[in-house]
Amino acid sequence: MSLALHSAIDRSHPIYQESDPRKVREMIRRGEWTGSTRGLAMGHTQVNLIIVPRSDAYDMMLLCQRNPRPCPLLEVTDAGDPEPRIMAPGADLRTDLPRYRVFRHGELVDEPTDVLSYWRDDLVGFLVGCSMTFEGALLAAGVPLRKVGALVYRTNIPLRPAGRFRCNMGVSMMAMPVDKAIRAVQVTTRFPGVHGAPIHIGDPAAIGIKDIERPDWGTGTANFQPGDTYLFWPCGVTPVLAGLEARLEFMITHAPATVLVTNMRDEALSIM
Amino acid sequence: MSLALHSAIDRSHPIYQESDPRKVREMIRRGEWTGSTRGLAMGHTQVNLIIVPRSDAYDMMLLCQRNPRPCPLLEVTDAGDPEPRIMAPGADLRTDLPRYRVFRHGELVDEPTDVLSYWRDDLVGFLVGCSMTFEGALLAAGVPLRKVGALVYRTNIPLRPAGRFRCNMGVSMMAMPVDKAIRAVQVTTRFPGVHGAPIHIGDPAAIGIKDIERPDWGTGTANFQPGDTYLFWPCGVTPVLAGLEARLEFMITHAPATVLVTNMRDEALSIM
Repeated sequence: MSLALHSAIDRSHPIYQESDPRKVREMIRRGEWTGSTRGLAMGHTQVNLIIVPRSDAYDMMLLCQRNPRPCPLLEVTDAGDPEPRIMAPGADLRTDLPRYRVFRHGELVDEPTDVLSYWRDDLVGFLVGCSMTFEGALLAAGVPLRKVGALVYRTNIPLRPAGRFRCNMGVSMMAMPVDKAIRAVQVTTRFPGVHGAPIHIGDPAAIGIKDIERPDWGTGTANFQPGDTYLFWPCGVTPVLAGLEARLEFMITHAPATVLVTNMRDEALSIM
Repeated sequence: MSLALHSAIDRSHPIYQESDPRKVREMIRRGEWTGSTRGLAMGHTQVNLIIVPRSDAYDMMLLCQRNPRPCPLLEVTDAGDPEPRIMAPGADLRTDLPRYRVFRHGELVDEPTDVLSYWRDDLVGFLVGCSMTFEGALLAAGVPLRKVGALVYRTNIPLRPAGRFRCNMGVSMMAMPVDKAIRAVQVTTRFPGVHGAPIHIGDPAAIGIKDIERPDWGTGTANFQPGDTYLFWPCGVTPVLAGLEARLEFMITHAPATVLVTNMRDEALSIM
């Protein structure tokens, strides 16, 4: 299972031997790891992070409420509090991700390994579910995960607007045989808090994707094989896109592939 | 099915012949019906309504985000906009419920049949899921609905606090044989947007209910029969309780048993 998920990763670093998410976060906090979080503390839920000022937090929460498929909100921190007390008590949102991106007016201004110097008393953290959470359940159900890397596309599916936010849905993609696709629908339906079932199966053009070989974000390969079909899941990059398109005065996000490792077990997010 | 659900209701009023939720709301808007919404436009989702000023709406949304079992938020309107554009386009939150309750500083000050005179440009409507939505699915699955009326209890289960809101969970109760209780868990799991599975089965005292014969809100009877067990679902009255306990400066809610009839089909809220 680990091999299938992480075949392209050099697992010689001691962080891969650490199964406790608290220890993993401590190593990241100490600066011992600035790479991808994929494969760390396996079985514990990893979440996308978006941090915005309290003045934009209402609209962001409204966006997530109105668009729960791409923006499944797992936790919202109190303004100024860097601790995600529900999903990762003891964690510090300012230091416990390997890398961050800092945006001003929609422009990337920094990609630091902590955001201590950027922290403000009015910042609110949004923890958004990630489809990595159901990958273990898919593997356990015999669904092959052929994808290496991340493949995320912009679609023509509009979000329900909320305040200053309006944009189209981002989706992640996997390829698999049709019978496995049916199984994947069943398995992922159990995980509504991390995007749930696919939003589309089949023709990429039907949701506005012009060239499946050229994702809008991410790099990697789907390892598409003869007889495979494409599955598309709503993607947690969507609220980040919404923040960028709104040119928020200030926003911090995780850097690609380096998200927050929480204390929550993946299976705790299955509703059955 | 109708008989089981509505045996205590005089169904001679023409509103019971109306299957279109838009027409039902028009009759209510014209003042032709001020009674319970139970049994109206059968098969269409009815939702709890809480209206608070924008200044309290952030904390209310946060409360719902942190406590989705008792507070499943189905829609949040834009401030000042009385139309729930997602679940009931064309509806008017100020006129389309049979009766309302108006609270100031936690005290009931009025129970009008519309709230036009109370409306303000800063008011935000919260539409909260109601367990009535899965009753049709329970009946279809052979689960007997013996309860008549509403039976809601205060528990000792604390909510996750949010801003100025902190209170315990309210629950609704049904009684049924144990084999049907198992089926009820399965069926209601499909409906996470309207409270989902029960939060407790069995001994009322285990969740702090001292006297099952004396609900804290509502009147009716469980029609408990020998061999039955009690099932408790998180209840949408909970965010109302939170608003009352916080003694919000201003809050409007539906009056008991008179909620909003939306255009959405109950089955649309099943995730499978």
